[in-house]
Amino acid sequence: MRDCACWRFIIFIMHSEIIAVGSELLSFGRIDTNSVDISSRLAGIGISVRYKQVIGDRIADMSQAISLAMDRSEIIFITGGLGPTNDDITREAVADALSMELKEDEQVVLELERLYRKWGRRMSENNRRQAMVPEGALVLPNLNGTAPGLFLHEGEKLIFVLPGPPRELNPMMKNQVIPLIKKNKRVSDRPFRLLKIASVSESALDARIEGIYKDYPDVDTTMLSSPGVISLYFTWRADNGDQVHAKACLDQLIGRIDAELGISVLTDREEDMQDTVGRLLNEKGLTLALAESCTGGLICKMLTDVPGSSEYFMGGVVSYSDTVKENVLGVSSSDLKEYGAVSAKVAEQMALGVREHLNADIGLSVTGIAGPGGGTDEKPVGTVFIGLSGAGTCQSWSVRALGGRGIVRQRSANQALDQLRKWLLTGG
Amino acid sequence: MRDCACWRFIIFIMHSEIIAVGSELLSFGRIDTNSVDISSRLAGIGISVRYKQVIGDRIADMSQAISLAMDRSEIIFITGGLGPTNDDITREAVADALSMELKEDEQVVLELERLYRKWGRRMSENNRRQAMVPEGALVLPNLNGTAPGLFLHEGEKLIFVLPGPPRELNPMMKNQVIPLIKKNKRVSDRPFRLLKIASVSESALDARIEGIYKDYPDVDTTMLSSPGVISLYFTWRADNGDQVHAKACLDQLIGRIDAELGISVLTDREEDMQDTVGRLLNEKGLTLALAESCTGGLICKMLTDVPGSSEYFMGGVVSYSDTVKENVLGVSSSDLKEYGAVSAKVAEQMALGVREHLNADIGLSVTGIAGPGGGTDEKPVGTVFIGLSGAGTCQSWSVRALGGRGIVRQRSANQALDQLRKWLLTGG
Repeated sequence: MRDCACWRFIIFIMHSEIIAVGSELLSFGRIDTNSVDISSRLAGIGISVRYKQVIGDRIADMSQAISLAMDRSEIIFITGGLGPTNDDITREAVADALSMELKEDEQVVLELERLYRKWGRRMSENNRRQAMVPEGALVLPNLNGTAPGLFLHEGEKLIFVLPGPPRELNPMMKNQVIPLIKKNKRVSDRPFRLLKIASVSESALDARIEGIYKDYPDVDTTMLSSPGVISLYFTWRADNGDQVHAKACLDQLIGRIDAELGISVLTDREEDMQDTVGRLLNEKGLTLALAESCTGGLICKMLTDVPGSSEYFMGGVVSYSDTVKENVLGVSSSDLKEYGAVSAKVAEQMALGVREHLNADIGLSVTGIAGPGGGTDEKPVGTVFIGLSGAGTCQSWSVRALGGRGIVRQRSANQALDQLRKWLLTGG
Repeated sequence: MRDCACWRFIIFIMHSEIIAVGSELLSFGRIDTNSVDISSRLAGIGISVRYKQVIGDRIADMSQAISLAMDRSEIIFITGGLGPTNDDITREAVADALSMELKEDEQVVLELERLYRKWGRRMSENNRRQAMVPEGALVLPNLNGTAPGLFLHEGEKLIFVLPGPPRELNPMMKNQVIPLIKKNKRVSDRPFRLLKIASVSESALDARIEGIYKDYPDVDTTMLSSPGVISLYFTWRADNGDQVHAKACLDQLIGRIDAELGISVLTDREEDMQDTVGRLLNEKGLTLALAESCTGGLICKMLTDVPGSSEYFMGGVVSYSDTVKENVLGVSSSDLKEYGAVSAKVAEQMALGVREHLNADIGLSVTGIAGPGGGTDEKPVGTVFIGLSGAGTCQSWSVRALGGRGIVRQRSANQALDQLRKWLLTGG
């Protein structure tokens, strides 16, 4: 392996800090998820988040937090507290910490007035607060909300003030903040790869691939699990700057894991199970209908999260009651009595029924016990059956999902879609 | 209003701080959820969390964070970084920041050895790291894992060092930490009320009730909005300790807001729209069926998030394609052509169709344009129609939902359930 010490002088190791603002983040169970978006986008250009502070809506506390961040971090992200109400005091705190004046920005006022006219609403006076801008700050237009972001360049420090709602922050981060960082700091793309693995447990996965990723000491491997899907992140360490070598190493690592795990590898893209399945259905020109019992509409909801899903998704029946299973999906009432609603037999009939009723190429079904009630010794909470009906085939799988009601439902949904995925990949 | 100044000397205003430790919390999308558990338990005894820091696995950074917390907070919670591996350095950082020696605790070693014997595993040498305890610290036994917690009483400050996994932290917080705080600090229950408001915008709501809550300077009012529902939290300030007076003030405030907002008040409980609607259906002994187009199963999923929803929820049809609207729900094909799938006429027929098809008392439907594609000048993205069919009635409402695809869907779902709620409350 080549000696990369020389690169250490060229690649500047840059640390950043996030200050998430809002009393609701310190109480009342609201969790800051913006940091996830910020840190993943920064990782893509080799910048790591070293500190995060969460601060309530008090100017003094925020001002202290900003001063601390100015002392120790090169790039600072302040999120939240930019709305129109009196407890949105981020603008004031930034101006206070950096000893700047706040002034009303005429352009922002005009843009706010334009937005309210477009919505056919009157702009109330407190909305003008959103047009207050610290002197010297660059206004970052908000295409998905009212409060604009702000960018300040203080000496060597970059300070970004961003709106709290993720739908406003995410595009601003991608389209405005990252380009501004690239323009103002020497940053390089940091090689990075991702693999998502379906229907394998974290410990089983680690046992299978530990021997592989340990062969690559220059790669940071991080495993993040959600019910039914595990994401593996492979990042080249930032202080070793040979991009060609780094990419080759990552490709080799990914290739070996791919070979070991085979069909369990869901995707190497930043996408969810429903995106992968949707892409496969589109490629094959097949349509899908869903019959859901314990998942209660969750799989339909996941599929229709994807814009354009109407190309392959016909619809579904949420057969929460047995009468709907019988009358709408045509499940045999004697089978319901003999085997119970949670059984392979009923899962298969639900899949067949919904395929015929909605005139789709494939019918997929889930029936199970999500809990907390309804479990028995023979069929405990977490017992789930998945049915699949296609041209000339009808099959079912039994799954045992551990966890609370929400986890069981999410895991069942992902596993049902994963069975469909595997079936499509193996010639379905 | 009585003069409460005297109480200020009796009730100590206590602020606490959380330091969440772990590099994974600063990158790769792992979110700290322990703070939610800690802050909600503390709220119950009148202690608020004023600051939160998230720190990676570096002794110097953690030591700095602990020193800062010691300067400004009375009670400090440090979570995570107590495991057996080399990057679990919380013990070292605490000892470093407080200038204490770490010593191996014989009792903890014995307990670890007992656990490993019980599991039939050999205890590896690195597990002994978990037995290192700062001098003078009280060991908090961990009944759900290996790493014990630690409690230090430094002058007036209380410092709790707690394991990161929620299943280990939560019971330790409840059974050991809260009793230790009660024993060492004067704490009292802090009055608190909640109101959730449906289908009103944040700025419109603020304009209507600002004049009311501003009459209560001793109450902290926090507004949290999600698409379609706004939560109002009213908390008595901790430094005014007359419980009877505080509760009376809160009751009066809630009563006035209730009178102003009327039927827009969804609930005063910690529950979601689907819980409220479920409770109403249960009380009236009515069953519900859903026909969903643009929401694609989301409303069914929300309704079945509630355990026991099978009492009143029959199921639903996700009619994502027009053929399903026609063939399954019986929507007139000429109306589909004439008015379009997104129209009041079709919404009403969907509601009627699903009510009859699933044999329910009430049919509720949503059809709209969730975006990003599909909008026209006449019917832009966010145009949504809600239909409702009950015995002898069929009505529809038109709604304009702003935001991205996910927001439009969530807002439409909450507004549809809210129309049903209002209909049920006004004699439906």
